[in-house]
Amino acid sequence: MSFLEQLREWQASHAILFGADTAPYCLDQRRRYQGQTLAVARPNSTEQVQQLVRLCAEHQIAIVPQGGNTSLCGAATPLNDGQSLIISLERMNQIIQVDADNNTITVQTGVTLAQVQQAALNVKRLFPANWAAAQSCQIGGALATNAGGVNVLRYGNMRELTLGLEVVLADGEVWNGLRGLRKDNTGYDLKQLFVGSEGTLGLITQAVLRLYPLPTAHATALVAVDHPAAAVELLRGLQAEVGDRVTSFELISAPCLDLLHLHFPRLAQPFQPTPAWCVLIELSDGGDSAALTDRLAEYLFAHGCMDAYVAQNLSEAAAFWQLRESIPEAQRIDGVSIKHDISLPIGAIPDFLEMCDAEMLSAFPGAKIVAFGHLGDGNLHYNLFLADKTAGVYEQEQAVNELVYRHVASHNGSISAEHGIGQLKRETLQQVRSELELTLMRQIKRSLDPQGLFNPGKVL
Amino acid sequence: MSFLEQLREWQASHAILFGADTAPYCLDQRRRYQGQTLAVARPNSTEQVQQLVRLCAEHQIAIVPQGGNTSLCGAATPLNDGQSLIISLERMNQIIQVDADNNTITVQTGVTLAQVQQAALNVKRLFPANWAAAQSCQIGGALATNAGGVNVLRYGNMRELTLGLEVVLADGEVWNGLRGLRKDNTGYDLKQLFVGSEGTLGLITQAVLRLYPLPTAHATALVAVDHPAAAVELLRGLQAEVGDRVTSFELISAPCLDLLHLHFPRLAQPFQPTPAWCVLIELSDGGDSAALTDRLAEYLFAHGCMDAYVAQNLSEAAAFWQLRESIPEAQRIDGVSIKHDISLPIGAIPDFLEMCDAEMLSAFPGAKIVAFGHLGDGNLHYNLFLADKTAGVYEQEQAVNELVYRHVASHNGSISAEHGIGQLKRETLQQVRSELELTLMRQIKRSLDPQGLFNPGKVL
Repeated sequence: MSFLEQLREWQASHAILFGADTAPYCLDQRRRYQGQTLAVARPNSTEQVQQLVRLCAEHQIAIVPQGGNTSLCGAATPLNDGQSLIISLERMNQIIQVDADNNTITVQTGVTLAQVQQAALNVKRLFPANWAAAQSCQIGGALATNAGGVNVLRYGNMRELTLGLEVVLADGEVWNGLRGLRKDNTGYDLKQLFVGSEGTLGLITQAVLRLYPLPTAHATALVAVDHPAAAVELLRGLQAEVGDRVTSFELISAPCLDLLHLHFPRLAQPFQPTPAWCVLIELSDGGDSAALTDRLAEYLFAHGCMDAYVAQNLSEAAAFWQLRESIPEAQRIDGVSIKHDISLPIGAIPDFLEMCDAEMLSAFPGAKIVAFGHLGDGNLHYNLFLADKTAGVYEQEQAVNELVYRHVASHNGSISAEHGIGQLKRETLQQVRSELELTLMRQIKRSLDPQGLFNPGKVL
Repeated sequence: MSFLEQLREWQASHAILFGADTAPYCLDQRRRYQGQTLAVARPNSTEQVQQLVRLCAEHQIAIVPQGGNTSLCGAATPLNDGQSLIISLERMNQIIQVDADNNTITVQTGVTLAQVQQAALNVKRLFPANWAAAQSCQIGGALATNAGGVNVLRYGNMRELTLGLEVVLADGEVWNGLRGLRKDNTGYDLKQLFVGSEGTLGLITQAVLRLYPLPTAHATALVAVDHPAAAVELLRGLQAEVGDRVTSFELISAPCLDLLHLHFPRLAQPFQPTPAWCVLIELSDGGDSAALTDRLAEYLFAHGCMDAYVAQNLSEAAAFWQLRESIPEAQRIDGVSIKHDISLPIGAIPDFLEMCDAEMLSAFPGAKIVAFGHLGDGNLHYNLFLADKTAGVYEQEQAVNELVYRHVASHNGSISAEHGIGQLKRETLQQVRSELELTLMRQIKRSLDPQGLFNPGKVL
């Protein structure tokens, strides 16, 4: 039986889509990558995934694993050759087990991040991963890209939140590594290979994730700072005082606030006038919010943060967060920008900004630099608006990237903090990682996926 | 030039020992493994390590990387064939950089754990890894075994504390992955391969490790509990109240306290009579100890922990910890026991203990079960004294292990939580991991070390 004949036979059982029905799965959310596919298979069990992978292996058909398709780097979108099969995990959306004693949750990887958060909440636990796409992104994609978000400072990336995986390998074998253990030193830690590999080494079908005690107290503040160096100092001082209660520490520059003024005038901004920089701070803890809020306010007052606004209730806190979370949308409305998701040693951020900004404004006069991000993790979203705000600006992308990544390299940073490589940064990866590192990665790829079936054209 | 001729030429520069001088490096600390070696090389730089590895690769001589030689599984001791070269990192003991803004420390891997702790303390930061061998174990060994200890509950294992590595590979190439970044999603996370690989994939020469805010407040308590299930309940209740201030949560059984009474009668024990179980709790935080201590005392009182002793000062706290830390030595004085370092889903621990104890006492009447460990991590040290307290008892080891590991398997646990595999559990590993997992591990080994030079006879 041919590959397509077999797919047609499985059409009902494996919920397979053909032709025009595949279109939504072939376009990435930033609308930069429009691919083509032979079909979209939507298995509802690990066994069905296994059958599909075996079929692909037999016919040497490439596989594009797909979750919520929210990648910012085109990692989940097929190439343009139309020769691959998308395997969407969207029907594998069951919470398998929540173990409050062990603080773990076991899920099929087609569940959304929001589903996992809710299931944890139902037993008074926290699943701390959180970012804008929580309602639509799936855990499989979050694992495959080692996603980050706003709580990494306190709880780590998806890698640190993962205890066990079930993975369908390139030959269709299923590796069952669904252990819910905090400590397990029995040979090589295989799950680490698959987390962050962007679907190029295997297809993650189930996962055991860590849960945490549910914080009952929150304190939120927006604080103006003169300079990013003052933000770093405030972060370290606050941590010395309250330790890991500092859950989020987000840096926001004046151009972000200006964009919000322009495109979301109804979102109230407390500052008058707009400061050069501000930070959004969130503390969380057991106990009650009033005491924690007082403590944050006292700390800010005692340390001379005069232009500081401490949320007095949940709706004020939500409003502060809405400002932060509306930045990407305000950018989108404003036009096409050239984006960078970089990380740096935290102490190097002030110097990086000073040097990179200066060269950028000199090389691209009139450029608007929209910088914001997770300062506590050393993660900056460093985005550029040039005069051309259409897709035409991408003609400048290479020159802009070369400039930014040169400063990233000289400050020992990374060109991709949390978004991954996908298609977008695949060529850049070849330039920023050493030949030895690329060789090691290729060896691992060859060892686990000798036919190169999984997600070709991504990462390597 | 022959291999040995070259070593003799390097004798002074690479501080190479031959003959009887190698003896201390050939015996493991538990005195179970007595190996032999061609020589012990003690390079003082990555370049010298590289020269040695290249020489070994050229002559196909096996390499045993060695740190403080404190492995509990014989992972750092050479085999008996006398055909390998020990490379000791003891002269590579420099702290390279402490970056308080970035909360990182960069070290050569021959530094001791205590040196790293002290260097962090000097800039008011915490390096949280801690265990009994802190003064003598080296960071390279800690990384190679993904070591754990008493603070894992709060801060994670060595894997979670590692941001970057420099590794000499099997062909003598040096991989420089010394990045100090919290977020870096640029291809496969190569460092994860080497952490926990017990020196079988490469030789770690430098590392960038995470530092944390230094807690200024501590509260310590010894609390009697009726049953391990009550201990689990206390842990989760306390975490709901104070979150990650719960830094350690150690379970101790009555036979441990009896052994301490017998062999360390001068160590005061607060309980009268000895309870069936107790837990040692440590909270840490910013602020001052008095308030934290009050909060712990109030919590214990409010939750009906009547036989509870909260340390009122540092020396009482130290005395409680001394009890916990003297258990291994009390065991050693008592005689030879059969030890297990296991982990379980935390909620499964009470049931495991009930079932395994019952079968053990039935199969080995009169056996004394000495169970203690890091309950918060699901990590138990489950040790057996039989009538024979000499090395003769090892004749029973296989039968005892079979029984224990069967219950570990049926409770989805691990046969090695934090000590690793080494020589001790190499054969057992073949039984407890699936054929698929072993095949994947062998593929990785072959891919990175095709000649099998690094630490043969360990792990795989």
